[in-house]
Amino acid sequence: MHPRVRQNFPVCKKILTFAPKRFSMPDISEKGIKMPASPIRKLVPYADAAKDRGIKVYHLNIGQPDIASPQTALNAIRNFENRVIEYGHSAGNLSYRKKLAKYYNELKIDISYEDILITAGGSEALLIALNVCLNPGDEVIVPEPFYTNYNSFALQAGVKIKPITTKIESGFAMPLMKEFENMITPSTKAILLCNPNNPTGYLYSRKELEQLGEIVAKHDLFLISDEVYREFCYDDFEYFSCMELKGIEDNVILIDSTSKRYSMCGIRVGAIVTRNKKVTESILHFCQSRLCAPIIGQIAAEAALDTPDTYFSNMHKEYLSRRNCLVERLNKIRDVFCPMPKGAFYTIVRLPVDDAEKFAIWLLDNFEYQGQTVMLAPAAGFYHTQGKGINEVRIAYVLQKPDLINAIRCLKYALEKYNR
Amino acid sequence: MHPRVRQNFPVCKKILTFAPKRFSMPDISEKGIKMPASPIRKLVPYADAAKDRGIKVYHLNIGQPDIASPQTALNAIRNFENRVIEYGHSAGNLSYRKKLAKYYNELKIDISYEDILITAGGSEALLIALNVCLNPGDEVIVPEPFYTNYNSFALQAGVKIKPITTKIESGFAMPLMKEFENMITPSTKAILLCNPNNPTGYLYSRKELEQLGEIVAKHDLFLISDEVYREFCYDDFEYFSCMELKGIEDNVILIDSTSKRYSMCGIRVGAIVTRNKKVTESILHFCQSRLCAPIIGQIAAEAALDTPDTYFSNMHKEYLSRRNCLVERLNKIRDVFCPMPKGAFYTIVRLPVDDAEKFAIWLLDNFEYQGQTVMLAPAAGFYHTQGKGINEVRIAYVLQKPDLINAIRCLKYALEKYNR
Repeated sequence: MHPRVRQNFPVCKKILTFAPKRFSMPDISEKGIKMPASPIRKLVPYADAAKDRGIKVYHLNIGQPDIASPQTALNAIRNFENRVIEYGHSAGNLSYRKKLAKYYNELKIDISYEDILITAGGSEALLIALNVCLNPGDEVIVPEPFYTNYNSFALQAGVKIKPITTKIESGFAMPLMKEFENMITPSTKAILLCNPNNPTGYLYSRKELEQLGEIVAKHDLFLISDEVYREFCYDDFEYFSCMELKGIEDNVILIDSTSKRYSMCGIRVGAIVTRNKKVTESILHFCQSRLCAPIIGQIAAEAALDTPDTYFSNMHKEYLSRRNCLVERLNKIRDVFCPMPKGAFYTIVRLPVDDAEKFAIWLLDNFEYQGQTVMLAPAAGFYHTQGKGINEVRIAYVLQKPDLINAIRCLKYALEKYNR
Repeated sequence: MHPRVRQNFPVCKKILTFAPKRFSMPDISEKGIKMPASPIRKLVPYADAAKDRGIKVYHLNIGQPDIASPQTALNAIRNFENRVIEYGHSAGNLSYRKKLAKYYNELKIDISYEDILITAGGSEALLIALNVCLNPGDEVIVPEPFYTNYNSFALQAGVKIKPITTKIESGFAMPLMKEFENMITPSTKAILLCNPNNPTGYLYSRKELEQLGEIVAKHDLFLISDEVYREFCYDDFEYFSCMELKGIEDNVILIDSTSKRYSMCGIRVGAIVTRNKKVTESILHFCQSRLCAPIIGQIAAEAALDTPDTYFSNMHKEYLSRRNCLVERLNKIRDVFCPMPKGAFYTIVRLPVDDAEKFAIWLLDNFEYQGQTVMLAPAAGFYHTQGKGINEVRIAYVLQKPDLINAIRCLKYALEKYNR
């Protein structure tokens, strides 16, 4: 690893003068050693260094939308009137859960507020879901490439990820059902799906999900469905929730987050939704152990449920236009291949490079085009199988179109220069 | 368990009509089964039922202070001006970490901002610290009674708690050093301390901590020190941080939270502080997996660092007066014993009852005095050793004095009636 990656935590010289007599220290845990740096964030020190040199960096690496958060949510924060910021209920604020249940009901997800537990983002939701559903050593099947932090949550829960590789040539479509069946062992306890998919932008169809539901029922598995991007579906492709699947109501666990829907990633408010009462009871105990989800965030999230439809139609139009602009321009670059994503705001792109991580570092460290460069997320970190995705990157189209166009132009010149 | 305890999650009849064909479902995990309900919160349904009957319930069960949050923090929330609530840095907002480092430096804790990682409350800080420092199966020694959620965090991390029982007769003083030494096995990896102590109110002296530090050094253990109540020390007892111990700088991990200091439990902002660079690097990876701590909370916490000294001197005076009022009155009740706490805002009280949990439920379910009753936290949940603390409760003195006096009067009459 390049030395600059470690600059965030330089060795503090003071320590040596404090403790002159001993240099031994207890070892950290195996989990602690194995916990990977985020492939989305680990190149940040290179980006910071580029910015220090006065270079404009286009952040295509991270799903941080630039769309304004809903006014109603911002107002709720600004109108916060309590004199004490108290603990809330461990399951989440009751008024928020009740209103959120209506949101789901309108999506044809038939649940009551008692089936909802509010979490500190989708991240906590996933970690708790894995902890509640799987024992250490149990296996969860996940189509890869997948959201990289699934690795971290699985590592924390001691759970084994069994990946099924999906292919860029088919737009990362759902694996064949026999591939799932082949992967199932006595230790398999769950299938984890992200729909619409981060990082691939694939949207699973109703038919694909119904087929998967049959396997879930047959092998009595949990189906953990991360659907935080449901508001981002393009063309005529329709979002179908795993919560709508019949006959496996007790198997399905929905992971949700307000981060992307309302462009307010920083409030850290998500949810776990399931009709399985044993699961909700146990999740509640996990939630009690950390007392409550962030209160101000919950107030903002509750208010955000009043966001007018125009907000979403404008957002949808904007992302659709960015997607089309991005994919068209990328595919015009020689030897670059980008499938057309159907949902979310990411895409995996194959680049004509030996090693996309090396290239991403080079972009920040050695390249500039008219004082600009691009930050990419190397896709290898989104694959579980060693060696996959080496020449792929994930791109988030969360920039305004003029910036997006500049970023792709940079990338084009960079590829030419890099391959010379 | 009384049936009403389960009322939070009644079986939803809809499920049966949705899934008529199958009633099997995958089992939840062992952790999921074992995760305990919070002894502080599990009686909430009884309290709700009492309130529904029109009874005023004095909450002595939970450390939810009634003191107003600092005006400067509330203003920061109300003045939030960003148009997008974006992700923050995984380690915490840089400006907050830098300002927080100064706060610690003024407390004679010599660290830099790079030694600080901001977490979602002290809860997340503890969970991550255990995960980073201990392998599943490793042992952590904790004097009991201890903050009940340590059990939950240990269970999540797969870590074994080895308790050393401290005694109410000695005010729950630090165990003898030989008791720690006797408890150490090849699997012992850490000692976990809460200072000032929740639930006992004990404050560890510099001398006691230095002795403990020698054991930590000798056996090369981590010393995880939860010091979230440092602003609450009474009489002439002085707070001494484990971070000040010499020679074990790489062993000490400080757990902190803004919840109690600024009476803003709901913002969910805490911190892990350590000079051990291997630990901070790994913690950062854990933090990256959940992206960032709540942003609005961090803004409030940063602003709270400007809270004027008068806020703390007033708060201190108020709690001191409550403590004196509570302890004096409790000890006047026949066969009740309450040691004098030196810090925090809790005390463990021995009651003349067969089973404090039964009594606590009875208080909510069958008792009232002039339309009022009291909610207590049964202390057994704060002990790891089965059978300990059966006739003890934890009381948080977080009510205004007139309410506190009423609550103790209720308790007095309740004990007379219960024992008749």
